[in-house]
Amino acid sequence: MQKKYLLAPGPTPVPERALAEMALPIIHHRAPEYSVVLQEVRDNLKYLFQTKNEVLIFTSSGTGAMEGCVSNLLSKGDRAIAVRGGKFGERWFDICKAYSVDVQAIDVEWGHAVSPKAIEDALNKDPKIKAVYIQASETSTGVYHPVKEIAEIVKKRENTILIVDAITALGVVNIPQDEWGIDVVVTGSQKALMLPPGLAFASLNEKAWSFVEKSDLPKYYFNFKKEKKSLEKNQNAYTPNVQLIVGLREILKEIKEEGLEHVFKRHANLANATRKAVQALGLKLYPSDEPSNALTAAWAPDGIDAGKITKLIREKYGITIAGGQDAVKGKIFRIAHLGYAGCFDVITVISALEAVLKELGYKFETGTGLKAAQEALFGN
Amino acid sequence: MQKKYLLAPGPTPVPERALAEMALPIIHHRAPEYSVVLQEVRDNLKYLFQTKNEVLIFTSSGTGAMEGCVSNLLSKGDRAIAVRGGKFGERWFDICKAYSVDVQAIDVEWGHAVSPKAIEDALNKDPKIKAVYIQASETSTGVYHPVKEIAEIVKKRENTILIVDAITALGVVNIPQDEWGIDVVVTGSQKALMLPPGLAFASLNEKAWSFVEKSDLPKYYFNFKKEKKSLEKNQNAYTPNVQLIVGLREILKEIKEEGLEHVFKRHANLANATRKAVQALGLKLYPSDEPSNALTAAWAPDGIDAGKITKLIREKYGITIAGGQDAVKGKIFRIAHLGYAGCFDVITVISALEAVLKELGYKFETGTGLKAAQEALFGN
Repeated sequence: MQKKYLLAPGPTPVPERALAEMALPIIHHRAPEYSVVLQEVRDNLKYLFQTKNEVLIFTSSGTGAMEGCVSNLLSKGDRAIAVRGGKFGERWFDICKAYSVDVQAIDVEWGHAVSPKAIEDALNKDPKIKAVYIQASETSTGVYHPVKEIAEIVKKRENTILIVDAITALGVVNIPQDEWGIDVVVTGSQKALMLPPGLAFASLNEKAWSFVEKSDLPKYYFNFKKEKKSLEKNQNAYTPNVQLIVGLREILKEIKEEGLEHVFKRHANLANATRKAVQALGLKLYPSDEPSNALTAAWAPDGIDAGKITKLIREKYGITIAGGQDAVKGKIFRIAHLGYAGCFDVITVISALEAVLKELGYKFETGTGLKAAQEALFGN
Repeated sequence: MQKKYLLAPGPTPVPERALAEMALPIIHHRAPEYSVVLQEVRDNLKYLFQTKNEVLIFTSSGTGAMEGCVSNLLSKGDRAIAVRGGKFGERWFDICKAYSVDVQAIDVEWGHAVSPKAIEDALNKDPKIKAVYIQASETSTGVYHPVKEIAEIVKKRENTILIVDAITALGVVNIPQDEWGIDVVVTGSQKALMLPPGLAFASLNEKAWSFVEKSDLPKYYFNFKKEKKSLEKNQNAYTPNVQLIVGLREILKEIKEEGLEHVFKRHANLANATRKAVQALGLKLYPSDEPSNALTAAWAPDGIDAGKITKLIREKYGITIAGGQDAVKGKIFRIAHLGYAGCFDVITVISALEAVLKELGYKFETGTGLKAAQEALFGN
């Protein structure tokens, strides 16, 4: 018997109460009992997004809602910017390309955050740019982009909107959509929402909806207007994953009970402890700029393949963390402290990390990482 | 305490063993244990589709895969036919329109099946038609279209492919894709696959893949080539709904244990008994042509609103069946015998139907429907 732990940046563990709710018999998506569930979910999504907008719900992974943010907001040949500082920034760029959008990448070295000035300069240089696509937390690098500052730049421009992929950020850090004036916020079910993958969300403000009115790109399943109209009648446009919506009701209730402020604080504490522990072990954090509170990305020690760390930690200790992707494959590892995570998940993963690093021949005093984590979590 | 029964044509009830599997902790979609699940699912999907093709898997409802069958197979301005004999036929037409395909509807009166000759004539008249879109079982009317005969017509033409929405047909009636030479078969998780909504499938033969090569329509999330390439490496292109895939493994195992032949026979028996019972009660079946074995659609008695039947049967007896859609709303009701359904589901729903019809003032001898069902199911 090997006890399993899921500490990768999505999918994340599902709280037991939500798993139990989702194991109940399926209800019909046009039945009155579903209406009650959907109404509560719609209300509480507004709380989560800190918005008055109707939050759109799609049965797909997050990428589906990202695609919808291109096909519903732009027209062929429209100009756009995609901040490309990791795998998911590349995805924005690729989706734009797939739809013949005239997209320009702002390339940011992996591990770095984009500077708001780079975006301001690009917009000044080409005022015809209609959309800026960015991640809040770039999951592939563990970097947090300065979304608030970028929103301030974009919202001054009448003909440009900001679309934020907050898939590993919403419900982790404070991103008050309405207060900051972010035009579109996207997220998915399998990160801070603590559900299996399979639901994607998009919240559009009035400015963004005015872009939808002008868009001529083809769309069908991810049709934002159609889903909004249906939701306003308390239905979904196409058969939704009722099981996940039932789970979502439970999750949103739990988030509301904990309170967003506490949720953010919990993530900040776990992130801080993980970073401290990793650094105490003499390892270097991968992000050069502000790290995301969703996950900690760190360089493997010199001479040790990061792939060996993730493999050993899984096989020997039952813990799933993530390795690096593409350019940093084998070089970094990523530990998530995201969603249904608490203090002892940090203690557990640092304990396993110490054991694995020892086995791989890395030299340090046993317990150094644990001590740092313990101090960060509970004080001296 | 009111015991609940779900007898609508999707979502359908989920077998308890699959619900239990799906209530287990989430696994990571890049972890070795997921590979084992996916490999088994891929193998058994081939059994279900009766094909050698790699069956594509998307995290979405069935409509997502339908959209992909337009955006991946055609190019702008290509000509296509959509058989429009119900709500889902309309969907094919609408998706084609959304992508600027030059689509022509073959309109079939609701409740009727398309005649293969109508399709042959249309293809003869315009040999440039590249694709024929059709339903096997049109869920809104309960009609089964003659897919086998249509496949024989289409497969003779080098430059035309047949795309069959088999969402309420696959796993209900025998549609051997390879044997019949159907180019593309689509299905979803929430019908005969007895899972919650959230997975869609498409199986393409070589001829269809050659169309994919030429397609220039925009696509990203529903990118068939990308998903095929990933599956061949035993992965999904985008984060899949791992929970549903885990459930699917269990379901496909159960289908294989029962054996497709028995699955088809079971559905045929349940359908036959339901039809006999409804007719014994003096009600008229809605389909004028071959009815689908997935569901029985019937006219409400004169002077009785079908909406009242579905409402009463739900509120008083906890049974969810479906009403009519669009043109036949309030006129017909639809009872599903689809997926995780057995003899006593038919007995139960006919018993409730009798009770409700009595309450609504319809005259008949109590037990007439039940007797007919009983005879059909178990013999005289």
